Amino acid sequence: MSTIATSFQGGETGPWVVTSLETLVDEPLARVSRFSISDANQAIPAFGAQWARRGVASYSRYTHRMERDGLQAVQEGLGRPAATCAVLSPIRKSREWWQLAQDERRAILEEESAHIQSGMAVLPAVARLLYQSHDLGEPFDFLTWFEFAPADTDAFDALLRAMHRTEEWRYVDREAELRLSRSPA
Amino acid sequence: MSTIATSFQGGETGPWVVTSLETLVDEPLARVSRFSISDANQAIPAFGAQWARRGVASYSRYTHRMERDGLQAVQEGLGRPAATCAVLSPIRKSREWWQLAQDERRAILEEESAHIQSGMAVLPAVARLLYQSHDLGEPFDFLTWFEFAPADTDAFDALLRAMHRTEEWRYVDREAELRLSRSPA
Repeated sequence: MSTIATSFQGGETGPWVVTSLETLVDEPLARVSRFSISDANQAIPAFGAQWARRGVASYSRYTHRMERDGLQAVQEGLGRPAATCAVLSPIRKSREWWQLAQDERRAILEEESAHIQSGMAVLPAVARLLYQSHDLGEPFDFLTWFEFAPADTDAFDALLRAMHRTEEWRYVDREAELRLSRSPA
Repeated sequence: MSTIATSFQGGETGPWVVTSLETLVDEPLARVSRFSISDANQAIPAFGAQWARRGVASYSRYTHRMERDGLQAVQEGLGRPAATCAVLSPIRKSREWWQLAQDERRAILEEESAHIQSGMAVLPAVARLLYQSHDLGEPFDFLTWFEFAPADTDAFDALLRAMHRTEEWRYVDREAELRLSRSPA
């Protein structure tokens, strides 16, 4: 948890090779070949950056204590040597979502859509970190970062398909999907 | 609800006269005579601004639907002609608070500390708007703005005393209180 914003930059440089960039809903992000992540407070953007999106790995808004304990018992960190695949999933939710009360948003997210449980089901294979962008006035509300080994791509794809079928996703009004790879560490 | 940050500026100009500026916990804010509020994206800060704090009037994090409906049924807006008193209450919460899970924070805030109910008890006299600053990397996590008529100062003071006695306030590790007045509109 931090209040220092992270910058996700697409361009011509960076350790990650862009293998696909899809716009699922709404305006596309400009196509880029490489991708990097840095502290958003750095004065100088990456050389050749075409776009940058910011987010904060902030406090969780919906996860209950028992769920958090369950996640922490099985999850593994980012940066595992074998996790050479990554996906950045930027989404924006509709005005209707943000006008719901806290208990309504929680009920849709977890009791109806099993968002937290679905993420837990692919642990520890698919590591994940959520960055909050809503209060920063960014074009997306959330940037979720996933890391996994190539052999776990099917598990990740199944997770994403399950999310797309949920009640929660009816409130997603902008979404992109950036797939990345790097050489084994 | 907005994602455009608001800037609260203390200095030598602005429609609000500073009647007191107290640091309740931690480092003081520089003393100023006047106070103004503006869109944080404006390029030019107020003339003579000594400090500026930013926040976003974002989605609510704890209020349930029934509570929201109750508040909306009785509250009045900001800018009422008779509401010539205002208070800016900047607070920061401890690392311990932010590491709690959502259900734990909600239980402390409302079930133990009656934060929402206490605010409702002084409606419509004391109008209030909460600005979120945590994700912006600001020195405070929240800026709460209150407006009321001079005759309702006692009701506001009682609200503040009640808040200071709560379990929730054990997690406040930085707090200031800026009292303001303006000529009747």
